Amino acid sequence: MRQVAILGIGQTKIDEHWDKSLREIGGDAAFAAMQDAGMETVDALYVGNMLSSMVSGQNQLGTFFSDWIGLWRQEAVKIEAACGSGAAAFRSALMAVASGDVDSALVVGVEKMTDKAGRDVTAALATAADADYEVEQGISFVGINALVMRRYMHEYGWKHEDFAPFSINSHANAMHNPYARLHEKISVEKFERSAMIATPINLLDASPTGDGAAAAVIVPADKVMRKPRILISGSASATDTIAVHSRKDPMFLQAAYSSSRRAYEMAGVTPSDIDVFELHDAFSIMAALSLEASGFAERGQGVRLGLDNEISPQGRVPVCTRGGLKARGHPVGATGMYQIVEVVQQLRGECGKTQVDGAKIGMAQNIGGSGASILTHILKKDD
Amino acid sequence: MRQVAILGIGQTKIDEHWDKSLREIGGDAAFAAMQDAGMETVDALYVGNMLSSMVSGQNQLGTFFSDWIGLWRQEAVKIEAACGSGAAAFRSALMAVASGDVDSALVVGVEKMTDKAGRDVTAALATAADADYEVEQGISFVGINALVMRRYMHEYGWKHEDFAPFSINSHANAMHNPYARLHEKISVEKFERSAMIATPINLLDASPTGDGAAAAVIVPADKVMRKPRILISGSASATDTIAVHSRKDPMFLQAAYSSSRRAYEMAGVTPSDIDVFELHDAFSIMAALSLEASGFAERGQGVRLGLDNEISPQGRVPVCTRGGLKARGHPVGATGMYQIVEVVQQLRGECGKTQVDGAKIGMAQNIGGSGASILTHILKKDD
Repeated sequence: MRQVAILGIGQTKIDEHWDKSLREIGGDAAFAAMQDAGMETVDALYVGNMLSSMVSGQNQLGTFFSDWIGLWRQEAVKIEAACGSGAAAFRSALMAVASGDVDSALVVGVEKMTDKAGRDVTAALATAADADYEVEQGISFVGINALVMRRYMHEYGWKHEDFAPFSINSHANAMHNPYARLHEKISVEKFERSAMIATPINLLDASPTGDGAAAAVIVPADKVMRKPRILISGSASATDTIAVHSRKDPMFLQAAYSSSRRAYEMAGVTPSDIDVFELHDAFSIMAALSLEASGFAERGQGVRLGLDNEISPQGRVPVCTRGGLKARGHPVGATGMYQIVEVVQQLRGECGKTQVDGAKIGMAQNIGGSGASILTHILKKDD
Repeated sequence: MRQVAILGIGQTKIDEHWDKSLREIGGDAAFAAMQDAGMETVDALYVGNMLSSMVSGQNQLGTFFSDWIGLWRQEAVKIEAACGSGAAAFRSALMAVASGDVDSALVVGVEKMTDKAGRDVTAALATAADADYEVEQGISFVGINALVMRRYMHEYGWKHEDFAPFSINSHANAMHNPYARLHEKISVEKFERSAMIATPINLLDASPTGDGAAAAVIVPADKVMRKPRILISGSASATDTIAVHSRKDPMFLQAAYSSSRRAYEMAGVTPSDIDVFELHDAFSIMAALSLEASGFAERGQGVRLGLDNEISPQGRVPVCTRGGLKARGHPVGATGMYQIVEVVQQLRGECGKTQVDGAKIGMAQNIGGSGASILTHILKKDD
């Protein structure tokens, strides 16, 4: 496959955008990415989205956005893998450009979640789980994660407050990201006092949803004149069982293991080469599990990276440098594209106070469902 | 891009499958295709589906099916482009295998539509149209097509009964297809007496929905030993405005024109080289418009191909040789894959009484929305 690079990026602030429709939110990110890339059109559009049919009564988001953005007559399609939809759309675009059939592609991850009542959105999010064997039992998505977190605490002897550093780091980093949903520093005390949602997951273990979109323009690497070039060096997608109860070991993210190993191999790197890791901290437990399955910590020891202060922008394994899902926000189908955009910002050196010094290799990992579908991408700076 | 071929195909009968769930229907087609291909696993799974989140409360169909089918840990994703979802999933799989990153792929188009009341399914289907500017006005999907058909009749002077041959041909061909939804011969008289749905579209202008799935396994062409090899020689996708009222000319399928021209060029053929054309006769008007935009008839003259008896398996432009959407049935997100499977059957010479003699080049055209997203694929028999 031919080498592909990211030429432009764009994003919107994640918020409750009562004044903006689905098309406007996605359009804003798309236009920003096209402008950043200096392009007026592209061959094809790939849209990552999970909820629009249920929340906005709108399917067919490929055509919906190609029409709105002015990519008339161009190829366009929507890709869905629950909360992994953003990275799944990115990988579909990558395959098309790598094949040689498509010469330039725009990828937009977009989600408009606040047009429905919370209970309706909770029900819509539950479509990521197994309808017949999980949701049928009345469990919600956060409930599934709570069961995993409780078992993990029991198995490895961690206390709830040991997870605080993940949340504190994300909130601290989001203070310097104007696109983040939350701008509020938190402490261990505040973390522990936060309202319980599904024991042991409290409000500060969980990421806030919201309306938002992030986008990127990709082209063959040999067409990029701009410096530094941001190369897509590794890309892989893997799945696990859709229901968590079907797994032999519910505390190991097999799909993170498989997709990260394949991405490392493709990029010719190891975990120690990764300068920045935008991981999927939808819940604090997922941050720990991602670090473990991706080779940054031993089983049961992901939490220690936070306690040892290794995850800050100055640490050994900087994660969630723009706020992560926890504080930047989690507009589900858009999240994977926010992660890609943020890794590009790091490699370009545009992150100000949360810039990782000399970042050359970055990784983004996007999770759909409770570890059911995981995509890992590795980007490299090429001066 | 490297040459890709279709190694195996599978399909289920389209029906009201009260006794089968979404996973069983998709699984049946998938297992049939894997068995036909003689393969036990593949690298990746691409699922085409439009309605499962709304009808079955199930998103994340990539993982849902990779889990059910036993493609554990493999890449899997869902692609959606309304009624064009099947072909869109096929094209995504093609790009991945053509790029060299994926060595074998299973594509499943699947839809379970009969688990909800008709009015709910009608509302779910309307998500293919523009929610803000079309559906908001209270128009249904069939209503939009009715407006186009009425204008076409007015503009070119055709009577309603002039559309009868499309429906008669599809019903006649479906008599010999065990997987078809309807097995009933019809006449011009019956066509004209049929119940009106949205003037001038009556029940026999419209395709029946249903539950069904169709699947194919694709691999690099140089890995295929089986004869004949079925090569994917042309593939293209194009869009139009999502709302029909935004088009300068609502009676011309611009996206069929663009995608068919590109597919012809890629395959090095012209319309006269096409031996069989599985077109998207969701409504009889769409059969006429597809023939015109794809270069088989002049503007306003697509209907004449039916009246001149050119569209039967013995005609100059055989269409819907297995029953088309009209009589084989239209399980929306699955339809594009039924078309691909049927073209393969023709090129393999497996169509019995509706076999097109000496068929060597076949085309499938799948439409999402009212011409909003159209994909054209050209397959070639390589002895």
